[in-house]
Order: sequence, then structure tokens, then C-alpha cells
Amino acid sequence: MDPEEYRRAAYASVDYIVDYYKTITERQVVSDVEPGYLRQLLPTEMPQEPESWDDIHKDFDSHIVPGLTHWQSPNFLAFFPGNTSFPSILGELYSAAFSAPAFNWICSPAVTELETIVLDWLAKQMGLPSEFLSDTEGGGVIQGSASEAVVTTMVAARDRYLRDAIASKYSTEEEKEAAIAAARGKLVAFASDQTHSSTQKAALIAGVKFIAIKTYPEDNYALTGAALTKAFKEAEDKGLLPFFLTASLGTTAICAIDKFVEIGEATKDYPHTWKHIDAAYSGAALICPEFQHYLAGVEYFDSFDMNMHKWLLVNFDASCLYVRKRKYLTDALSITPSYLRNAASDSGLVIDYRDWQIPLGRRFRSLKIWFVMRTYGAKGMQEHVRKTLGIGMHFTKLIQAHPDVFSIATPPRFGLTVFQVVPSRPEETANEVTKKVANRINNEKVLFLTASTVDGKECIRVVTGSPWATDKAMSEAFEYILTVSEEERQN
Amino acid sequence: MDPEEYRRAAYASVDYIVDYYKTITERQVVSDVEPGYLRQLLPTEMPQEPESWDDIHKDFDSHIVPGLTHWQSPNFLAFFPGNTSFPSILGELYSAAFSAPAFNWICSPAVTELETIVLDWLAKQMGLPSEFLSDTEGGGVIQGSASEAVVTTMVAARDRYLRDAIASKYSTEEEKEAAIAAARGKLVAFASDQTHSSTQKAALIAGVKFIAIKTYPEDNYALTGAALTKAFKEAEDKGLLPFFLTASLGTTAICAIDKFVEIGEATKDYPHTWKHIDAAYSGAALICPEFQHYLAGVEYFDSFDMNMHKWLLVNFDASCLYVRKRKYLTDALSITPSYLRNAASDSGLVIDYRDWQIPLGRRFRSLKIWFVMRTYGAKGMQEHVRKTLGIGMHFTKLIQAHPDVFSIATPPRFGLTVFQVVPSRPEETANEVTKKVANRINNEKVLFLTASTVDGKECIRVVTGSPWATDKAMSEAFEYILTVSEEERQN
Repeated sequence: MDPEEYRRAAYASVDYIVDYYKTITERQVVSDVEPGYLRQLLPTEMPQEPESWDDIHKDFDSHIVPGLTHWQSPNFLAFFPGNTSFPSILGELYSAAFSAPAFNWICSPAVTELETIVLDWLAKQMGLPSEFLSDTEGGGVIQGSASEAVVTTMVAARDRYLRDAIASKYSTEEEKEAAIAAARGKLVAFASDQTHSSTQKAALIAGVKFIAIKTYPEDNYALTGAALTKAFKEAEDKGLLPFFLTASLGTTAICAIDKFVEIGEATKDYPHTWKHIDAAYSGAALICPEFQHYLAGVEYFDSFDMNMHKWLLVNFDASCLYVRKRKYLTDALSITPSYLRNAASDSGLVIDYRDWQIPLGRRFRSLKIWFVMRTYGAKGMQEHVRKTLGIGMHFTKLIQAHPDVFSIATPPRFGLTVFQVVPSRPEETANEVTKKVANRINNEKVLFLTASTVDGKECIRVVTGSPWATDKAMSEAFEYILTVSEEERQN
Repeated sequence: MDPEEYRRAAYASVDYIVDYYKTITERQVVSDVEPGYLRQLLPTEMPQEPESWDDIHKDFDSHIVPGLTHWQSPNFLAFFPGNTSFPSILGELYSAAFSAPAFNWICSPAVTELETIVLDWLAKQMGLPSEFLSDTEGGGVIQGSASEAVVTTMVAARDRYLRDAIASKYSTEEEKEAAIAAARGKLVAFASDQTHSSTQKAALIAGVKFIAIKTYPEDNYALTGAALTKAFKEAEDKGLLPFFLTASLGTTAICAIDKFVEIGEATKDYPHTWKHIDAAYSGAALICPEFQHYLAGVEYFDSFDMNMHKWLLVNFDASCLYVRKRKYLTDALSITPSYLRNAASDSGLVIDYRDWQIPLGRRFRSLKIWFVMRTYGAKGMQEHVRKTLGIGMHFTKLIQAHPDVFSIATPPRFGLTVFQVVPSRPEETANEVTKKVANRINNEKVLFLTASTVDGKECIRVVTGSPWATDKAMSEAFEYILTVSEEERQN
């Protein structure tokens, strides 16, 4: 493909994307394909001869696109939103064109420098404490996902704990090493039972134990200081070492908010325990000042993570991780073989983000963030957050207006409504009928929503953060859910 | 930005990219900017009001592009290539437009299914054993980088070892747990001293020890079976447990190739030790049958990784990891909370690649691979590999033709030439003059190359894999290196 062929193909692809978005509301949100559909359509071997773009694109249109689930559709009400936006797509286009595994400053200075700048912009806009800005001992870094953010901080936390809480008690290298080896098997990471599974997975990767602390409906499923104190004490009684905690600003199933101030107070006697805030979805709301009170207590925490690729119009991946002391990341992750040495890095004047993350290489992800921030402006992004919150609230009110059919299961928050279907026949439980409704809706594929279990209750989760969402589309979604629910209650 | 504004902006961006590639050879390969340049050009706060694309793009052109290092330039001779190609850029464009953190099959069936298909195509084209194909107990998965591939396999290896080699010797859960806790601090991962730093970093992340085995010039810096046997024995004598080994097909500094058959024989008595092949760069050559003899011994290995985003025309990131038994990845990494359950996954008919990797979400990366494979065909990709190898060989011959000025340091392989400058004055060593030449060239920024230390020798590495490389550009690069070297030898 020469440059002129590329120009033609790219123009056509841009047109295809425009058409896609103009028809997004009409497309069936979840694909109809059956497992293994694509293997039946494509050859078993790689083509030997070059093929024309027209032929490739024809297969793309007929074989690939029908197998997509449309996350940008207003009928996508499952999980959390996974937004993209036009300026974000342009950022990825340029990033691919200038492709580089930009692992240090000299590999492409703009990649490093723009990242520092947009992450500082974002931290200020969210009202994070100044200790998380790059002109202090802290700073932000773009990770691929909240999972990678939690693994990265947990590894830094583990090494800090083993060094500062364990090895520091001994004088010889031999004693230190023996003490560290003995402590490794006793390290334990904590989170509430509502916390996203990524913390448990991070513990598997870091090779440490994991304890989930039970939460209760009377606390709106938040992790409290008292529960944490009790859990830490119980662990210590068994000889375990609490070295890491994830607290959530908006848990996955129900958007619960842990009690940051209480947690901070409860962990005052644990100076070596790393405290991480996972605000992957809900943290996006912090760009609006009216939500920044949720940050109360953040001063007790070592790190904070929010995914712009969920609600904030930047396509996957753009997980924004902030740490109070970047030294703990680089202490744990920095290795500099001779082929990576260079004058700029040796001078200490530049940031090498490779030492803040698991991979060595990195894409130019700050570009799409910069394009989105400037195209929307803070005001445009706030408008998007408030508009989609309003659409969520609109749905909540519709659910609440039908107490005979639906019951709210947990307090609606950040546009998420979690509800059960009320059974109409004495022999059927709310769990049974709710599950039937969720399954039928997801099988019919008019909408896509999530079925989730909260404290033994089978619930339906509905949330939108799509820039294409409207009150009207949400009303139609509600009407459909109501019809299905009324039918299933009778069956 | 509405769809029509996007169309206009995207057309202009496509034109910008075409112009960029048409002028790539004229651009200075490394940026002239000083550390901190961008902070002086951009505001300290995020813009509050939306801005026009024209204004944003003007700043992009004047502030961002001058801060890029041009990895696609034929004058980029550093590290390993980081190719992109036009069909790959189109793949990223569509991936961003259909953005989704497609963590399981139902989240976008085509994302999962196309990945399985193109990875099977690639494995067959490279001549990997059939055990690495998806219709067996193994299979391939796209990782972000070779670093992530080695962390992922090391975590799977660690858990397999602790279960199969340690816990299996005990009967009660309590005994098993105590034995595992005691063993954790004794686990050790091995690699040669030429292996890419990612294995050492993976050991930091997995919380295990790392031992680098010394290699020797008489073995062309390959890891041998005898050296491995000795290193394992020494570790065991100290009570350590060898659970993981990285062997390289093409090391970073010099493209050394470890002795796979010998390593396989030497580890026959270590059935629980995971053996990984890192073929990140050089593995690309395997798409040509004449290089597949390098795979001899692969039957002893548990996993194999090759980065298409280096030499194979797919933009970063596309690291293709194959495992012989996928069960070991999912055993170590699978967690399924209620909100991720769905009928397709529960049925066992589909692959959920999230259980084969660290992150939960995943981009649609197989699309760019598919576009590249079909646009080039195997023959076009082979032609690219052979052409750039020829250009590398052309450079080697130019170096060899000037034995008074240059000496080859290690055998040229896979297009990489590693050489020293021969000193002309008795008071200067080869190390000194080579370092001077490398520093001056990288400071002048006409070319970008890597200075690297091999076994105490300061060397210059030159390699190209760029589709824009030509014999002519390489001859000019050589003439420039020759001029600088001759000058520095006199100074």
C-alpha cells in the first residue's frame, strides 16, 4: 500500500466510521454471532499473496463488523461505559502513524512531556492534592488499565514494606535477606468484598495473600474504619502482614464509596501499608467541583487511579494513575541495562515512565487525552458528565415510579441504577424473576445490561455514559425492560 | 466535534500523515528539543472552553511534531526497529472507532475470534509446533509487549511450580500452605547475561530472585546447556529453586541465539521448571522458511514470544505470545466475579483472553495484524524481512571493508551489526574512541544508533528494519559514520 493508496483507503475508512456513528442507534447492540462463527468464514492459513484493500475491506464489512458489540450505542447499558470520541480517534490515528515504543525521553520527547502535562491538568481539574502533581515528589502516569495500575502499586508497596518494615530491623545483608524471605509468604493485601476483582488478581500476580473484608447494607456496602481495624487485627493475630489496601470510589457492582477518612484514621498506626484508591469509573465525576467532596480523606492515600477510557471520552486505553511518591515505583521497577542509557536520562532532568510501569515500551496515549481536553474543554467534559448523570437519574426515577414491578437494591450513584424485579407469584423469589428478566433481555439483544449478585441478591445494573445517550433512548429502554419484566412476572 | 467536523479533521489528518511519510527521509531523526521544552509552550491548566480543531492542530504541528523521534526514518538505526505500515494504521483507526475494553467474548466476539485466527496463521507461518495452536491445549494471545509476556508466563510458572513441585508433596491444606510460604523466598528465575532486562524486571514483579548466567565470546554469547546445568546446580546447593528460564532467539545487544537443544537436554530433570523463548525481534525472521532451523529444540519449551511491532510492520503494540498449555495461564490468572459471568463464557465454548494476561480490558489489536497480513501476504512480509536483512548485510560489508577503522565485535545476525572503532593513537583504547564516536553521532542527530556494552566492550549497534530503508540511505549512513570515526580517531 503506497501513500496514495493509503490516502484513498483512509478516506474511505473515515467515511465508514462517520456512517457507523450516524447509524449507531439503529444497530443491534450485541452481536448475533455464535461462538466460532469467524473460523467458518476465514481461511485456515495466512494468505500468501498480497490482496487489494477493496477485498480486505469487503470482508471487514461482512465478517468483522457483524461480530462487534457496540459499546458506543445508547442501548449499551452494561458494565461501565467504554467511551470514545472523535478527537480521541484522531489521537489514536496519529499515535499509530508516529508509532514508537517510546520507553524513555529520548525515544520521543513529546510522548513523555505531553503525558506529564495532561496528567497535571487532569489532577488539578479533579482537585487532587498538590502532592500528586509532577513538580512535587509524586506524579501521574498513563497505565493501560486499572488492573495494571493496581499491580504496579502493589509491587511498589510490597517492596517498600519488605524494605522499610522488615529488612530495616536487621543490620547484615544476610539477616535482611532471610527476614524478607520469611515475610514474603505472610504479606496480605486487603479490599472490601465489593472491590473490583483486579485487586485480587494483582495479589495473585504479586504472589501475596488477599483478604476481602465483608461490607454491609447498613453502610451502603462501604468499607468502614471499624471493619478495617478488625480485619487487620485478625490477620495480624494469624501472623500475617497487612501491606496493601484498595479502597474504592465507586465499586463495580453498585458504585459504593468506601469511607476514606475513617480508613485513613484506622491505618494511622500502619505507616508502611500502602493505601490505594480505585476510582476507575466514578472518579471521572471529580472533574465537576460539586463531586470533589468525595475526595475527603485522600490525603491519607498513597495512590489514586481513574480511567479516562470509561466515562471521559478517551478511547481504551487511558488509565490515569497518580502516586504521592514516585520514588517507590522507580525503586521497585527500575532496571537500566547499557543499551537503555542516554545523556538525558542520566542527567536526571527527564522522566522515564518505563520505570513507573510493568512494560518497557509505551504508546503515545497522551495525544488523544490532549485532543479530547482541548476539543471539549473542561466545560464540555463537565457537561458530558452532568448530562449522562441526568440520564441515569431519569432512569432511576422511572424505576422508582413502578414500585409494584421494581425495587431499588442499592442507592443509585454516578448514573448507575441497581434494581430487582418484584415477583408477582408467591412461589417465585425476587432473585428468580430478576435473573429471568436479565437473561431474556440479554438474549433478545435489544439492550445490553449486566446481571450482578450483591450480597446474595440477584440484581440488574443499568448505566450509560455514552455521548450518544439521550433521555428519549433511555425512556425506550425502560419501556422495554418494563414490558419484559411484566411478562416474566406472569410466566 | 460532530460527525461532519470529524470527517473534515480526519481527512486533513490523513493528508498530514501522507505528507509525513513522503518527507520522512528529510526529517532529522532525533528531535532537537531540550528537556522541559513542552511545558514552556503549553498552559499550566486545562482549557476551560472548547477549542477549534484548527487551533489544536496548529499547536500539534508546531509543538508536538518537533518533539518526536522518527522511528520510521531510514536514519533510525537504534535499538530494534519499531515498524508501522499503512494497513496497520488503518487497523488502529478502526480499533479506536469501535473502542471497547473487550475483556470477554460477548464484549465483542470478533475481537476474540480474529485474535485466535491470526495467531494461528502466524504460528503456522513461523513453523511453530502444532502444540502452540489454538485447537490443541495451547494457543496464542496478543500481549502489549515482550515484558508483559514474560511477566505473565513467569507468574504462571511460579504458581505451577509451587503447586506441582512443592504443595503436591504434602497432604493437608495447612502443610501445603506452609510449604508454599517457605518456598516463595527460594524461587529463582534464570536467563543469560545477554537476555533482555524484561526477565529481570519480571522477577522483581513476581517477587522472585533472578540469576544471570555468564556467557562467553567463544560461544558467541549463547547460553549453553553446560552453563545452565552448572548454574542450576549452584543455585540448588544454596537451597534455591530454579523455576523459570528465559532463553533468547536474538538477544538485545547482539542478537545472540541460545542453544535451545542443549538447554532442553540440560533441563530434562526439571519437569516443573518453565522454559520461555524470547524471540521478540529476531523471531520475525521465522516467517521465512530459511530461518526456521533456528527453532530446533523448541519442543522442550513451554512458551514463545515474538513482537510483530518490531520488524513485522504492525505498529506497537502487538506481542504474540504462545503457550503449550493455556491451562497454566488461566490457573494462575482467572478470577470470575458475578458481573463478568455470561452464558458464552460459562459454556466453555469461547476463549476469554483476560485470563491469559495481566489486564482485564483489551483493545482490538488483531485487526491491524489481519490488515497487514492480507495487504502484504506472507510473500510481501517475507520480501520485507529479506530486503531489510540485505540492507543490514550491505552495512556489515561496508564495515568489514574498512578494517583499519572498524572491527566487528560480535557476529552480525538478523541485520544487526555490532562494531567498535579501531583507535589510531596508542594512548586511546577502542572503548574510548568508540564511545566518542557514538556520542558525537547521537549528539549531531543525523542518525540515531545505540551504544551498548558487551562483555566490557563499548560497541555501536546498527540495525534497520524500516520499510523505508534502502541500500542508498544505508550507504550514506555508513559514509557519515566513517567520516565521524576518522575525525574522532585523530582528535
